Amino acid sequence: MIEQLKNRIRAARGEIAPDLIVRGGRIINVFTREILEQDVAIHDGFIVGIGAYEGPQTLDVKGQYLCPGFIDGHCHMESTMLSPPELAKAVLPHGTTAMIADPHEIANVLGKNGIRYIIDSSNGLPVDFYIMLPSCVPATHLETSGAALTCEDLMTFREEPRVLGLAEMMNYPGVITGANDVLEKLAAFSDMIKDGHAPLLTGKDLNAYITAGLRSDHECTSLEEAREKLKLGMHILLREGTQAKNLRTLLPLVSPATVGQCSLVTDDLHPHDLLSRGHLNYLMDIVTNEGIDPILAISMLTLSTARFFGLNNLGAVAPGYQADLLILSSLQPVEVKTVIKNGRIVFNNGYFTYDVRQPSHRDCPSSMNIKPYSPDSFAIPQQGEYIRVIGLIPDQLLTENRVMKVPKKNGVVISDIRRDVIKITVVERHHGTGNIGLGMVQGFGLKKGALASSVVHDSHNIISLGCNERDIYGAVKEVEKMGGGLVAVKDREVLAALPLPIAGLMSDRPLHEVAQGWEEMRKAARNLGCCLEEPFMALSFLALPVIPELKITDKGLVDVTKFTHVPLFV
Amino acid sequence: MIEQLKNRIRAARGEIAPDLIVRGGRIINVFTREILEQDVAIHDGFIVGIGAYEGPQTLDVKGQYLCPGFIDGHCHMESTMLSPPELAKAVLPHGTTAMIADPHEIANVLGKNGIRYIIDSSNGLPVDFYIMLPSCVPATHLETSGAALTCEDLMTFREEPRVLGLAEMMNYPGVITGANDVLEKLAAFSDMIKDGHAPLLTGKDLNAYITAGLRSDHECTSLEEAREKLKLGMHILLREGTQAKNLRTLLPLVSPATVGQCSLVTDDLHPHDLLSRGHLNYLMDIVTNEGIDPILAISMLTLSTARFFGLNNLGAVAPGYQADLLILSSLQPVEVKTVIKNGRIVFNNGYFTYDVRQPSHRDCPSSMNIKPYSPDSFAIPQQGEYIRVIGLIPDQLLTENRVMKVPKKNGVVISDIRRDVIKITVVERHHGTGNIGLGMVQGFGLKKGALASSVVHDSHNIISLGCNERDIYGAVKEVEKMGGGLVAVKDREVLAALPLPIAGLMSDRPLHEVAQGWEEMRKAARNLGCCLEEPFMALSFLALPVIPELKITDKGLVDVTKFTHVPLFV
Repeated sequence: MIEQLKNRIRAARGEIAPDLIVRGGRIINVFTREILEQDVAIHDGFIVGIGAYEGPQTLDVKGQYLCPGFIDGHCHMESTMLSPPELAKAVLPHGTTAMIADPHEIANVLGKNGIRYIIDSSNGLPVDFYIMLPSCVPATHLETSGAALTCEDLMTFREEPRVLGLAEMMNYPGVITGANDVLEKLAAFSDMIKDGHAPLLTGKDLNAYITAGLRSDHECTSLEEAREKLKLGMHILLREGTQAKNLRTLLPLVSPATVGQCSLVTDDLHPHDLLSRGHLNYLMDIVTNEGIDPILAISMLTLSTARFFGLNNLGAVAPGYQADLLILSSLQPVEVKTVIKNGRIVFNNGYFTYDVRQPSHRDCPSSMNIKPYSPDSFAIPQQGEYIRVIGLIPDQLLTENRVMKVPKKNGVVISDIRRDVIKITVVERHHGTGNIGLGMVQGFGLKKGALASSVVHDSHNIISLGCNERDIYGAVKEVEKMGGGLVAVKDREVLAALPLPIAGLMSDRPLHEVAQGWEEMRKAARNLGCCLEEPFMALSFLALPVIPELKITDKGLVDVTKFTHVPLFV
Repeated sequence: MIEQLKNRIRAARGEIAPDLIVRGGRIINVFTREILEQDVAIHDGFIVGIGAYEGPQTLDVKGQYLCPGFIDGHCHMESTMLSPPELAKAVLPHGTTAMIADPHEIANVLGKNGIRYIIDSSNGLPVDFYIMLPSCVPATHLETSGAALTCEDLMTFREEPRVLGLAEMMNYPGVITGANDVLEKLAAFSDMIKDGHAPLLTGKDLNAYITAGLRSDHECTSLEEAREKLKLGMHILLREGTQAKNLRTLLPLVSPATVGQCSLVTDDLHPHDLLSRGHLNYLMDIVTNEGIDPILAISMLTLSTARFFGLNNLGAVAPGYQADLLILSSLQPVEVKTVIKNGRIVFNNGYFTYDVRQPSHRDCPSSMNIKPYSPDSFAIPQQGEYIRVIGLIPDQLLTENRVMKVPKKNGVVISDIRRDVIKITVVERHHGTGNIGLGMVQGFGLKKGALASSVVHDSHNIISLGCNERDIYGAVKEVEKMGGGLVAVKDREVLAALPLPIAGLMSDRPLHEVAQGWEEMRKAARNLGCCLEEPFMALSFLALPVIPELKITDKGLVDVTKFTHVPLFV
């Protein structure tokens, strides 16, 4: 270490030639917020000098901009359905060189093994993955998750070099009522970063939540909410993801005075958005299009985030900082021409210039442990005239609790295609409990066949809906066979399938294949009559028993307003 | 810990009454940089809520300002000559609630024991003393210091709760030439704060210095120098001390964009200045008098400094922060009416409201270990006609190397009062080596008697100058007897003495006594004919072999330009 430091110092002084000189760029200086035309000398992966340098290895970027690599301050990488190596490949061309990830989804499936997989499979990539430890696994007691993470479990990862702290504390009722298991986790991580997650919390409850040590929030949906949180010292993560789009609303918060307290984050970004709009570059464009100085936008994407997370060698173009640099041919819109990571050019003019590691899903433990079942397992014996039906509301995560009379045949409830009421089921896949939740749903439009998926928040059991038991059985079976994924089935024939063998959540294929697979799943669903824009996204929220009104888990129907299970028959 | 947290949360929610409500103040919000009129609820030493709170314990501050306690980002507390408890008493009424101290002087005298004394004696005071570990002890090889601190020695303090990192790395030649012992220290503290100290360093050498991990500087003397350092990512500590006054020069650096990278510090502040001008309040007044928004001034005195040093619970009035608050009756000039520390009112309307602990110098080990000596020890046998004389330059630390012919008597050199050339000596006091450096000095104006002091940078041996050997002997003897301090002697009679029994550097008496003692020493020196404004300050720099041109240590004369010892006789 001392020899390396000595060499960097020698390169800084010009005693030896630096590994690389980036010459003539217009450097975005995040300390003084000005643009300066100077060379950048890089040695041994670090920036060693800003000034005029000489050496054989140069990259001439005259007239172009040079800025620190972008940092995503909060994301769930599982939403992209990409393995860490493929995710790195997907975001790097857009200028992202570091991501702060909360592996909440995989932790719900595989517990500590899931976190371990994310840490191991993201090691040594050209994007730095920092980990915030999932604070709320499982999310509720109303479902069977793959694992429960205790404080002790989380502590085993505390000293990992890329672990920064405790991820989004969603259980804000637990915080402000002082639940012991919650405070135990906060106390165990008292000296590390603890990300908040407190939608709509205000006044004294918000003060209580912050008092507990939660110093950031990415759930603001109104400017007023963000202002209150900022005034109370919270670091505001301005979010623009696939579902949650809050950036434009919150932008008036950003000023030269507050920019150090603001970061830009994606939270949940789905593969098709990642493919079509890119990554943090898209957020930067929103910010600058709204009239904010590009230097402030870059500050929020770099130094502000690095400082909040205590990443003291990231986020600036200055001596001693990790040489994570972007060459931009334009600031507005932002155009990333070259990406330098740890001093090496890893992306240039549209091409990767590093050895892309092939991921393997075999590094991830199997996540399928289902008690044997048959088509009959999905039969609903009729025990009354009226049942509770999950009523979809277009373009919303909210559902309605509809009570309806349903048809029967041979003593079992059958789908009522004419009224768009079909069967829905959640099959427990983690512990072989044999739990199968059964119900009916209205609003998908499916006329035939079945859909199934293992991406179902937050426990990620297998959800399926279909017009009959046989197709549902076939669909669930196919998901099980693939080790997880999405599938559309008709008359026992698989119409389309997107395998997600990593925990049943992520693919080991590249972004364009995954995005295309997603597209094919949409088409297949549409061919079965489905009328929703994003059927598999709608499916993924139907087992989330924290968003009202009626949901279904492997343990049965949940009346979310009562936060308890309710019987199918009224 | 969990029970305490639970109670703070309950107080934040208003479920139980907070310990204290500060009502109706105009809060300086350092996050949004605005002033907000709200209550502050305090419980268990922490701020738990901002808003409207109710409870029996209230402090009505309507119309007054409320801001975080001030933090001194860099100081050598030994310069104040006060023990930590007395220093706390001295600075608290001026709003200082935390100081980041480099115990460099006492470490030169007592090594690890000195650092230990500072840590222990500063524990539990109403001012938080954070410690940066002295990086350069001894300062040079040209003198005998009390101790040498190796990397291993420093490492023993690494895990102390109030130790933040490595103090001012003065040995910048060692850094940029890659000296092993220097890099070893930097590597050992790679994950902690490392303060820089790089006067006039620029260009590639500055890049090299910063590359080594030094991220702050308090030695800028020109705006251009500060700008260069700030651009390269350094945190700039704007200094206004007793000797070094750089604040006004550097103030144009401060803007809404850069204020997060700037702090205000005192570095070295002598007792008379502390008594007459106060502490950080004086710096704040300079800043606001120069036209800078008081909110920016307060930001530099609070959040900016706390953030740089990783003190995540200091520097803001917000939930979860330590309840270190000031009530200000005026911002410009700043008038501190009340100081709240850890939630308790410790100073109010001119009076301390906490139990002032009496310090004892007996907690500090003795620092006098001198080989027996007599008046004859200070005789200079004549070995030639011409000698090198240290020539004082009024109001400067620089001296001249003057070669002069000197009178003799009985074979020894004697003082030449007419030409103002008198004897000067440095007696080693740490290891009983018997080292006595002998020389002559011109420019003090002393006509009779002798002065002596154990405050002599950086090794703090005993320095004395006088008109004859007997008085010099008497003066050194008196300093030894007092266990350190300042003394003026004539005809063996002690005219005035300021005992500094803590390492020979600090008193155990309160500020006003120490300042008065200092004043009496000045008078006594003047009565002996001394023509200097601050004779003991001038004395304290005469053994510092890093400021040109001619200096004296216990090992003899030093030609600083050659960085080597030279004989007295030419």
